[in-house]
Amino acid sequence: MNQVGKERVLTGDRVTGKLHLGHYAGSLQNRVHLQNKYDTMILLADIQALTTHFERPESISVHLREVALDYLAAGVDPNQATIFVQSMVPEIAELTVFFSMFVTVNALRHNPTVKAESKGSGLDELYYGFLGYPVSQAADIAFCKATVVPAGEDQLPHLELARKVTRRFNELYRPVFPEPRALISDSPRLVGTDGNAKMSKSLGNAIELASSSEELALKVRRAVTDPARVRKHDPGHPEVCPIYAYHKVFGADQAPEIRENCERGTIGCTECKRRITLTLDLLLEPMRERRARYAGKPDLVDEILIVGTRRARGIAKETLAEVREAMGLDYFRA
Amino acid sequence: MNQVGKERVLTGDRVTGKLHLGHYAGSLQNRVHLQNKYDTMILLADIQALTTHFERPESISVHLREVALDYLAAGVDPNQATIFVQSMVPEIAELTVFFSMFVTVNALRHNPTVKAESKGSGLDELYYGFLGYPVSQAADIAFCKATVVPAGEDQLPHLELARKVTRRFNELYRPVFPEPRALISDSPRLVGTDGNAKMSKSLGNAIELASSSEELALKVRRAVTDPARVRKHDPGHPEVCPIYAYHKVFGADQAPEIRENCERGTIGCTECKRRITLTLDLLLEPMRERRARYAGKPDLVDEILIVGTRRARGIAKETLAEVREAMGLDYFRA
Ligand code: SF4
Ligand code: SF4
Repeated sequence: MNQVGKERVLTGDRVTGKLHLGHYAGSLQNRVHLQNKYDTMILLADIQALTTHFERPESISVHLREVALDYLAAGVDPNQATIFVQSMVPEIAELTVFFSMFVTVNALRHNPTVKAESKGSGLDELYYGFLGYPVSQAADIAFCKATVVPAGEDQLPHLELARKVTRRFNELYRPVFPEPRALISDSPRLVGTDGNAKMSKSLGNAIELASSSEELALKVRRAVTDPARVRKHDPGHPEVCPIYAYHKVFGADQAPEIRENCERGTIGCTECKRRITLTLDLLLEPMRERRARYAGKPDLVDEILIVGTRRARGIAKETLAEVREAMGLDYFRA
Repeated sequence: MNQVGKERVLTGDRVTGKLHLGHYAGSLQNRVHLQNKYDTMILLADIQALTTHFERPESISVHLREVALDYLAAGVDPNQATIFVQSMVPEIAELTVFFSMFVTVNALRHNPTVKAESKGSGLDELYYGFLGYPVSQAADIAFCKATVVPAGEDQLPHLELARKVTRRFNELYRPVFPEPRALISDSPRLVGTDGNAKMSKSLGNAIELASSSEELALKVRRAVTDPARVRKHDPGHPEVCPIYAYHKVFGADQAPEIRENCERGTIGCTECKRRITLTLDLLLEPMRERRARYAGKPDLVDEILIVGTRRARGIAKETLAEVREAMGLDYFRA
């Protein structure tokens, strides 16, 4: 079921809101580049969204389509990549249940995400599903036998657990799963417009991919800069300024010049912001065009997800048949 | 999908080995009596067998058919009751995953089964799937909207958690699940042939329903009796004797007479054992006949499980459609 001669990549996002420049720089851009080279499976992780959003699941349906539009706008080609909905592949839930038999609570609590969450309140206060987040991720990777998983440094422990789980399955029963390897992304976290180390929707410091020119300009205008620059000719410290960070990531060509001028006090923040606004506007403009095209055809977007999910299910069914056989749970030839 | 005008009962067994007199007295006999009155769903819990048997799943396939034969031999009527295989209803796994979002680790660790297991080694050493056993049980009951669950006193905490989980779901989203109530069985645990409080295959003190007359006689002959009775005319203490316990449960008519004679020293243990052997043989004989009939037609037994599982899946699909709608996860009309 692999696209001929291509390794399979599994990647995706929890559908908890619109994607922003941080997602683009951190993973989405890379996916677009990889979609020719790899058989790319992109997971809309609505089940994993539930681990934190189970009290307001009605938002998930909206977010699901927003994120799908973000993908298509960013250049994911539905004829090359397979975009699919996690909850519509029940085999992932089955695999999660199978895997949970041989993963200890101990292994899970040392996962950094779980650890961070349980630090304040303790393991006891965690929801069982949240504790099992890494098991669910292992199932995401395993069901389609992905061999490559793009990951930032901070996601490596998740992937390591997924590797352990599939290795353990192979030892216990029969080799069914390949060992997935990380495709480590060198793009660092994108700083927020408020200077916070992480751009994040919930911190209100994000520039969404769906921003209009006006929204973009406003966000940039309101962004913090080097606080030491009071007057235009004060020497600046670009390394502490989010605007410079955006220049580096999205306009690498002009970044050295910006740096020099900022440090010498020969460019004002207003001019510097005007230039990054232009750069980002050029980046977002083709996305806006593609988005408008797809947004006008909601049935087409749904169809893309349905077709993608159907393909994912086909793969999942084959894998689960192997899993049942390996575990001796294939009782009937019915 | 209910059988017209009947409440639905969910019951079942983990498929970890042949059933014995303890199962019969504790639940199976009752199921046979109830199958006219209730729409009886009987779960062959192979997934839950995995929580302790994941390292040797090959045995589950054998046990599955043995337990099915035990049911049929004991008088479960496949035209009335629905016998089905847990792992072949993936919707149960899906529901387990949904429920796990809003059950805390704390609620699970106070479940007596989990507590007993974690006492020695601590919560950390538990397998994640084992910790989630009660969530999985809640899903068993909920997927078919059972309103009645036969339970011994010791299973009430499991049922209470299942009630909490479904109540929480109904509050969070929309009332989908009825609140299941316990049908409390007054049959006490059956003592083992070695005098241990619980008859259990793993303790080697069980009399299997599949025993031949010879096996039965041998097990009874080897059973412990009141150790105070050295000579035939020593007065006995029937309350400490497993043989007397079997008389009480399986031959209630003659039990008072046995008791009196034992206490007076006017019946010998050999004679007493001869009589319970006869009683049990009369109980098992029709089971042997039915078993022989089904054992000669393995395809028929498989067919019964396939048909039962198909019915269970039909019910499960309807419930899951409601669940997705209630949670807002029914994205497409596809
Ligand atoms: S000139 Fe540019 S890089 Fe320097 S502080 Fe101002 S906005 Fe930041
Ligand atoms: S006479 Fe029967 S009840 Fe009494 S000790 Fe012997 S076996 Fe047990």
